[in-house]
Amino acid sequence: MGGVSQDERLSRALLSRLAEPADRRIGRLLAQRPATEVVELVRSGSPHVPAVERYALRLDSADPEADLARAAEVGGRLLVPGDLEWPSQLDDLGEVAPWALWVRGTVDLRLAALRSVAVVGSRAATRYGDDVAATLGSDLALRRWTVVSGGAFGIDAAAHRGSLAAGGTTVAVLACGVDVAYPPRHDALFARIAADGLLVSEVPPGAAPHRTRFLVRNRVIAALTRGTVVVEAAVRSGALSTAHEAARLGRPVLGVPGPVTSPMSQGVHRLLRDGAGVVTSAAEVVEALGELGTDLAPRPSGPTDPRDSLDPLSARVLDAVPARRPATLDSVARTAGVAPAEAAGALGLLEVGGWVRSDAAGWRLAPRGAPR
Amino acid sequence: MGGVSQDERLSRALLSRLAEPADRRIGRLLAQRPATEVVELVRSGSPHVPAVERYALRLDSADPEADLARAAEVGGRLLVPGDLEWPSQLDDLGEVAPWALWVRGTVDLRLAALRSVAVVGSRAATRYGDDVAATLGSDLALRRWTVVSGGAFGIDAAAHRGSLAAGGTTVAVLACGVDVAYPPRHDALFARIAADGLLVSEVPPGAAPHRTRFLVRNRVIAALTRGTVVVEAAVRSGALSTAHEAARLGRPVLGVPGPVTSPMSQGVHRLLRDGAGVVTSAAEVVEALGELGTDLAPRPSGPTDPRDSLDPLSARVLDAVPARRPATLDSVARTAGVAPAEAAGALGLLEVGGWVRSDAAGWRLAPRGAPR
Repeated sequence: MGGVSQDERLSRALLSRLAEPADRRIGRLLAQRPATEVVELVRSGSPHVPAVERYALRLDSADPEADLARAAEVGGRLLVPGDLEWPSQLDDLGEVAPWALWVRGTVDLRLAALRSVAVVGSRAATRYGDDVAATLGSDLALRRWTVVSGGAFGIDAAAHRGSLAAGGTTVAVLACGVDVAYPPRHDALFARIAADGLLVSEVPPGAAPHRTRFLVRNRVIAALTRGTVVVEAAVRSGALSTAHEAARLGRPVLGVPGPVTSPMSQGVHRLLRDGAGVVTSAAEVVEALGELGTDLAPRPSGPTDPRDSLDPLSARVLDAVPARRPATLDSVARTAGVAPAEAAGALGLLEVGGWVRSDAAGWRLAPRGAPR
Repeated sequence: MGGVSQDERLSRALLSRLAEPADRRIGRLLAQRPATEVVELVRSGSPHVPAVERYALRLDSADPEADLARAAEVGGRLLVPGDLEWPSQLDDLGEVAPWALWVRGTVDLRLAALRSVAVVGSRAATRYGDDVAATLGSDLALRRWTVVSGGAFGIDAAAHRGSLAAGGTTVAVLACGVDVAYPPRHDALFARIAADGLLVSEVPPGAAPHRTRFLVRNRVIAALTRGTVVVEAAVRSGALSTAHEAARLGRPVLGVPGPVTSPMSQGVHRLLRDGAGVVTSAAEVVEALGELGTDLAPRPSGPTDPRDSLDPLSARVLDAVPARRPATLDSVARTAGVAPAEAAGALGLLEVGGWVRSDAAGWRLAPRGAPR
């Protein structure tokens, strides 16, 4: 679980009860001191915490240990920065980066998100949009790309279903607790996602979705992924907010064209006219996002992140190592776009560090949590 | 009819019988000497005309006066460079510029083409493509933009019909004579176009369409217009050749998105991925093409073109003067994007030159053929 203390973990769990996601006041405090200290400041009603009373009000009813137990009951856990599984690309969000993520499922979030793409769109999707999203989800899965989306009706659900049908990894980022089925009719879908992929949320178990939580949730979808594909969106669709977050983060924004006579494609066409990339297939999505841009190479983050020790070459080679099926040295080098000799050196160091392992068949990622 | 001699006109009519459109050998010869001399070289079997025998072979059966008479019978005429009605933007085609155009209809080709857009696409259009092309045609007509297309089934016909239905000017550039209905089922459509718009062809009356004539015809559609909109096109559609000609000429290429599941939109989506502009309505087409670019300002051409005397400011102001309804000085200045004082000066000179006329209601173009 990395080098994060249990106290720090509990404090971050508690903060997810006390504050709403994307709270800049908390984000700024956490940039300067550990969560344990931030919680102490709240408890003492310190003037160092702006509007401290709004957080203190919730202290009495908060029970982070119970939240962690509840998460464990449904196969969930808490991730915090510094955990090996923490996806460091979320740091790109700066002050509004999540300080903890509740996740439910057996997949490693960081590895799943390495090659991931947001597939988003309207709840009120047309049959065309549903078909396109499901096909994209399946074809991305066949290319071993993870789909990341919300948990809504329409495009979100179709993309997850497509990925699941092809045996892929799919990640639903929710605006409610990972043990809450919202919308209720997605109960079975969420259970399948938890079994083969991941449910992810910034809010603790049992938490209900609010309107603002849906909106701030979109920044997590955009930040987790290498880029965002909008399949269908009316002109004022919330799905566009994910696209705008992606653009703000420097991630590619892609759109699937549709009939100009369909209101559900108008928002997408506006994006395309504003410079988003036109994609008509998973192959084109991968082409647009496949090269690991420098934007997404691991960035320096807090001193507790073990990956900080990786130099850019090692990080690049690590990203080229598959999770399950082993790959040859040449294949890893080719995927990473480096010389075989460079790849060999980096792989040796990564193996010593516990990041990857090798056998006669080739190189693959070490099981989750292996390094140190 | 401008300052073109009857001999020159007859020689160009004859050359349209002797040579195929876009014949570079003839184009190069016509860049150096009058058509009368080129015809003399052909008649004498001169070695100055490469492969002269191929042209000479057709001399016996050619009768340009009969062709002109036949054109006149169906309400047609011959246009050649130097005629006031000649659309000088065709000069952008260089060696493969048409040396004569047979036109049928009552509209002035140059004026019609000032604000014109090519609307092209597949013969085997879908219902969606037909609907979009017809709506584009109508909405462009309502904005007083001329539609230019071919004469085929599918997108071509739908665009013309849309324009005609809205009382617009539409131009069909044919690969056969302007008196030939090809395809035969378009007999009535062509009659309507000849009544309210123009049929245009490089080949003389009676000439049949050939495969290569369709292809070279596309360069005329691209060169006449300020830009090309592709509504539907399969990946290997001939409509894409018009788009490529437009791109080669520096004219904007625009595409109407459609369902990614439709093969008839795949060629368009490929264009969009290659950088063509996304348009979903006539308003967006006009926005993309509306500003008169320097590309389309009158260019220097042969010494017989009276517009050569126009300076860039006058040319720009002339283009801002409407053909029918008079416009105020301020309106002309605004459309031309120049100061009212500049516009007033230019209009005065243009009026003296016989290009425009004014009355209490404002400024409008002089009737065809007025200058000098």
